[in-house]
Amino acid sequence: MEYRVFEDMILVRLDKGDEIAKSLMEVAKREGLNLASVSGIGATDDFEVGVFDLDRSDYKRFRFGGNHEIVSLAGNVTTKDGAPYIHLHITCAGEGGKIVGGHLFEAKISLTAEIFLQKGAGAADRLRDETLGINKIRFE
Amino acid sequence: MEYRVFEDMILVRLDKGDEIAKSLMEVAKREGLNLASVSGIGATDDFEVGVFDLDRSDYKRFRFGGNHEIVSLAGNVTTKDGAPYIHLHITCAGEGGKIVGGHLFEAKISLTAEIFLQKGAGAADRLRDETLGINKIRFE
Amino acid sequence: MEYRVFEDMILVRLDKGDEIAKSLMEVAKREGLNLASVSGIGATDDFEVGVFDLDRSDYKRFRFGGNHEIVSLAGNVTTKDGAPYIHLHITCAGEGGKIVGGHLFEAKISLTAEIFLQKGAGAADRLRDETLGINKIRFE
Repeated sequence: MEYRVFEDMILVRLDKGDEIAKSLMEVAKREGLNLASVSGIGATDDFEVGVFDLDRSDYKRFRFGGNHEIVSLAGNVTTKDGAPYIHLHITCAGEGGKIVGGHLFEAKISLTAEIFLQKGAGAADRLRDETLGINKIRFE
Repeated sequence: MEYRVFEDMILVRLDKGDEIAKSLMEVAKREGLNLASVSGIGATDDFEVGVFDLDRSDYKRFRFGGNHEIVSLAGNVTTKDGAPYIHLHITCAGEGGKIVGGHLFEAKISLTAEIFLQKGAGAADRLRDETLGINKIRFE
Repeated sequence: MEYRVFEDMILVRLDKGDEIAKSLMEVAKREGLNLASVSGIGATDDFEVGVFDLDRSDYKRFRFGGNHEIVSLAGNVTTKDGAPYIHLHITCAGEGGKIVGGHLFEAKISLTAEIFLQKGAGAADRLRDETLGINKIRFE
């Protein structure tokens, strides 16, 4: 991983073997990010996504291998319990241009990824919503 | 729905039952938005998308139920006839990570959504193009 | 094609017949862009995408016809060998809301496209990585 800060915009380049959420967490901690939108593209050959099951109040997880283009990585950096919190959804194209995706749990980069973080002039925190089973954004 | 304005960036949190386009229209009206890019993620269990049929000059519509992760919400706020105009496309992941999407007509939030509006320093208006059957952006 | 510059944001409207990468290259050259994130939506009825084959170190290409909604266009403008370099991934919804996508080689607009470029305050260059077979971002 390597990245540069251009005023409000951070451009992150991930390399083969880097895991997306872990890498962005490292950038967020180093740069003291409280709020940022995330958007990016890249390639992954080992990733796990989830789709929330409303009946069980938890994610059903699906793991995929084989090289895929990351056609969309979208989400945000906020904070929870005093630390950065990374929330990402991913969409990936595999053989024949076929697409899969969901809430991102883990994705290892196969070639490279190019991810923009656009910093917000403020902060947004999260609080556990036990009824829904998710960590919801809470504005101060 | 709850939102905060952070200079040029607005972060909107939608809650269970909120409809996306209606909610963003409310933000646009309250904040007097003339131009903004939109990007977001979330979850929906009742949504209708369209794919434009060039022969009929109208959208074919498809409705989906069951909880889906919104892996990408993308589009913009412009103006038409003196009011904000919301144009959004959506991509959603359901059972097994399977993806559907299109031009967004309606999407009801099942858990939450986290949507960024990045304001532009200006305005972009729309005019009906009767030949194509769409409302095209017209720069002044 | 028509576009307007709103300080750090450029909004590009593409018209029927315009090709996405060629059009954005033209904007990048005219505006002297060294770094920008790209996000957009639109419609295309003739596009070619690729998924990188790690064994062959090259893209497998897939071409699609019939009108599709561009549900996500994502990527960036950087530089390579002293000229702008456009890197885009695309996701498209066709009949029944079915989705395909990948690394974008070519896409001709069928109706319109609405694309935002968010300029970064700096530059990012690319260098050929012969081992991987791709042009990787290299920070100065």
